[in-house]
Amino acid sequence: MPLITLTTDFGWKDPYVGAVKGAIYKELETVNIVDISHDVSPFHIAEAAYIIQNAYASFPEGTIHIIGVDAEHTPENKHVAILLNGHYFICADNGVLCLIMSKLKAEKMVEINIHDRISSNFTTLDVFVSTACHIARGGTLEVIGRPIESLRSITGIHPIVSESQSYINGQVIYIDNYGNSVTNISRELFHQVGRGRKFVLSTRSEKLKAIYDRYSDIVNFEVEPNKRDVDGKGMVVFNSSGLIEIATYRSNPMTVGSASTLFGLQIDAPVIINFENS
Amino acid sequence: MPLITLTTDFGWKDPYVGAVKGAIYKELETVNIVDISHDVSPFHIAEAAYIIQNAYASFPEGTIHIIGVDAEHTPENKHVAILLNGHYFICADNGVLCLIMSKLKAEKMVEINIHDRISSNFTTLDVFVSTACHIARGGTLEVIGRPIESLRSITGIHPIVSESQSYINGQVIYIDNYGNSVTNISRELFHQVGRGRKFVLSTRSEKLKAIYDRYSDIVNFEVEPNKRDVDGKGMVVFNSSGLIEIATYRSNPMTVGSASTLFGLQIDAPVIINFENS
Amino acid sequence: MPLITLTTDFGWKDPYVGAVKGAIYKELETVNIVDISHDVSPFHIAEAAYIIQNAYASFPEGTIHIIGVDAEHTPENKHVAILLNGHYFICADNGVLCLIMSKLKAEKMVEINIHDRISSNFTTLDVFVSTACHIARGGTLEVIGRPIESLRSITGIHPIVSESQSYINGQVIYIDNYGNSVTNISRELFHQVGRGRKFVLSTRSEKLKAIYDRYSDIVNFEVEPNKRDVDGKGMVVFNSSGLIEIATYRSNPMTVGSASTLFGLQIDAPVIINFENS
Repeated sequence: MPLITLTTDFGWKDPYVGAVKGAIYKELETVNIVDISHDVSPFHIAEAAYIIQNAYASFPEGTIHIIGVDAEHTPENKHVAILLNGHYFICADNGVLCLIMSKLKAEKMVEINIHDRISSNFTTLDVFVSTACHIARGGTLEVIGRPIESLRSITGIHPIVSESQSYINGQVIYIDNYGNSVTNISRELFHQVGRGRKFVLSTRSEKLKAIYDRYSDIVNFEVEPNKRDVDGKGMVVFNSSGLIEIATYRSNPMTVGSASTLFGLQIDAPVIINFENS
Repeated sequence: MPLITLTTDFGWKDPYVGAVKGAIYKELETVNIVDISHDVSPFHIAEAAYIIQNAYASFPEGTIHIIGVDAEHTPENKHVAILLNGHYFICADNGVLCLIMSKLKAEKMVEINIHDRISSNFTTLDVFVSTACHIARGGTLEVIGRPIESLRSITGIHPIVSESQSYINGQVIYIDNYGNSVTNISRELFHQVGRGRKFVLSTRSEKLKAIYDRYSDIVNFEVEPNKRDVDGKGMVVFNSSGLIEIATYRSNPMTVGSASTLFGLQIDAPVIINFENS
Repeated sequence: MPLITLTTDFGWKDPYVGAVKGAIYKELETVNIVDISHDVSPFHIAEAAYIIQNAYASFPEGTIHIIGVDAEHTPENKHVAILLNGHYFICADNGVLCLIMSKLKAEKMVEINIHDRISSNFTTLDVFVSTACHIARGGTLEVIGRPIESLRSITGIHPIVSESQSYINGQVIYIDNYGNSVTNISRELFHQVGRGRKFVLSTRSEKLKAIYDRYSDIVNFEVEPNKRDVDGKGMVVFNSSGLIEIATYRSNPMTVGSASTLFGLQIDAPVIINFENS
C-alpha cells in the first residue's frame, strides 16, 4: 500500500490538513497517510528541514513525503519532486531539503510542470497531491516534470569548522517539545574534528566538558532516588538524531524549566566547541 | 473502504478522540478515519461550520463526517444525519451545517432515534459512532431516524447586502493558523454585487482597494529579493476557500505579526465593502 | 488488521511521532496506527495513566497500546509488556498502568529483554516498536521477555476512604480540554461508601450537594433559552469516564471561564466528600 507523509505549517485547527487528506483519498482508495508535523512555524524552512531530516529515514523505501511549507508557486519558488535515498520528496525548491541533500546525492530531480493540467485550487498543495498520487500509482518523475541538476540551499544551517580544526562554530537550530536546544553539530563532525581531544563546549552562559550518549548517563544509580537531585540539571547529549543537544535531565518547560529558557538558548544562539591542542 | 472524518472541540490531549476512534474500529475492521480538526473552540458552532464547510468537499463522495461540537443530546439539541452533496453528516441540529446548507439542498435528513438502543455512554459521541458505522456498512438513514424537513441555522454568519447593492456588510468569521482574518464574504457574492465596479474595503483601521488572487501577487519579482520589503505587508485575497481574507504576506504571528493582531481583526470584527455608483 | 495506539509526551511538532510511525510501517505493511495523545505533560506519569485508562477499553480486544512517557531504559526503569483485559500494553514499569491495574489483574506480564538484539537507536521507543510488531505478527510475550509478578505503582493517585466510611478524600488528577477538573473519585466508590446518604462535596472554595449524570441536567428546559443564565455555572458531574468532575456548564476557558480557573482546582487540589451519619 502506498505511504504518503505530510509535513506542513498549516497547524492542526484549520481545514487545510483535512482537505489535503480528502484530496488524496479521492485519488487513491488504499493509501496510508501519516502526519509528520503540521506545527512547523509559518514559513520556517530551517525548522521544516530539521523535522523532515529526522523523520523520513524511519519510513520504508518508496515512501512519498509531501512538504507544504512556503509552497506557493512563483517564478522564484519552483515545485520539485526528488528521489533520494529511496524516498520521494515533493516540495518547493526553497532549501527545505538542504539537510538531507548535504549528505546524500539525489537519484532523480525534476521541476514539476503539470500546473496547467491541474484545475482545482483548494490549497497551494493541489499540485503536490496530484504528483504524490501519480507516484503512488507507479508513475515516473519524468512524466510530471523536467530534469534539473541542483536545488537551492539555505545559509546558516551548517556549522563552520576553523581551518586549523581548533573549533566548531555551530548554532541552535531547533527547540524540541521538552525545551531542549538542538544544535547543528553532528556526532560525526564532532568526532571527525575532535579526534578524541579534550574540549569545552560554550554557550552564552555555560561551559560544558562532557557529552553523554543518553540522558540517564548523568544519574548515579547507586545514590538513593530522593537524594540524587538531577531533575532539571543541565547536560549535553548526542540526541536520537545524532546531533549535539543542550538539554536538562527530565526537562519540563512547565516545572523544572528547560535548557532553552534556563540557558537562553533560542533558535540561532551560538554554540562553540573549542578543542585542546593535541 | 469506508471513510469517516472527525471534527470536534475535544482537543488533542484528552482521551476522547482516541476513544471515539477505538469505538469505530470495534465496529469496523477496515475503515479510514481522518481527523479534520479537534481544535474547534469549545462550543463554537460558527468556527466548526467554517472548518467543515472548507474541508468536506475535498473528500470522495460517500464520506461520513462526524461533527462533535455542542453535541449533548437534549430536548432542544437533536441528533441528525444528513445526506448532502453526496456526503453524510452526523451532528447535533445546532446550526453547524448552516454554511453548507445555505448553498445546497439536502438529499435526505433524519432525526436520529436510536438513543434507546445504545447502551454505552463513554462520550456524547456514542450515538454518532453507531450511526456512522451503520452507514459505513451500507445501512440507510431511514433505519436509524425519522425524516425531518429543515435544520436550525445560526445568526450572524451570513453577510448583509444593501437593497441598493451599494455595499456588503460582512464580518470576520475565522482566524487561521497564520493569523489571517477570513471574512464571510465570498468571491461569488463580491462579483455578483460589485459587477466590476470600483470599491473600498474598510476594516476598523484600514481602507483597501484591491483584492488579489494569490498571496504572491503583491510581489514585484523584477525587484531584487532583499529590496522588496513585502514580508508582513497587509493585503486582501480571495483565499483557497473562495472567501475574502485580510492577510499579511508571509504572515507569522510570532515575527512580522499577523493581520488579526496588526489590524485588530478578531472574530466578529466588521468588514464593509462599498461599491462606487456605476 | 493489527491495531497499534500511541500515547506519548512527544508533542505534535517534533519528528519523533512520525519516526515511530515510519518504523512501524517498515515492519508491518498493513496496520492501523491510532494516536491517543502526544500532549501528555513531559514525564507526567499520572496524566498518562488517566489518558490511557480512559481510552483503551473503547478499542477492540487484541489492540496493542504503546505508552512512550518516561521510557528511557535504565536499571530502575524496566521495559514491560502486559496482557490485560484482552489488550496489550508496552511501556516502562513506572506506574503508568496503575489506574488500570487497580481494577484488573494482568493475564501475562513480562520484562522485555530484547534490548541487545535491537541495533537502531532513533528514539527511546525502538524497543517498544519492535515489541509491538512482534505481537502484531502473532508472537507471544514469552519470546521477548521474562515473566514478572508485579508492577510499580505511584502514590497519590488513589483516593482515601476514612475507616468509619464518613468521608472520601480525593484530589484533582486531570484538567481536560474544557478546563474541567477531573477527580480520582469514581462513581462506584462514591456509591459504595455513600450508600445513598446525603453528602457535601468540598473544594477549596465551593461546597456542592448534588452530582449530575449529564451536563445538561442543570438546565431547566421550560425556561426560555435567553433567560436561563446557566453558561459557565459550576456543577459536579459523573463524567464519561465514570469519575467525579467539577465542571462549568458549556465551559470555555477563553470566555465564560472554566472550573479549574474559577474554583482554583488545578492538578492535586483536594476534593473531599463528607457523608451524613445514617
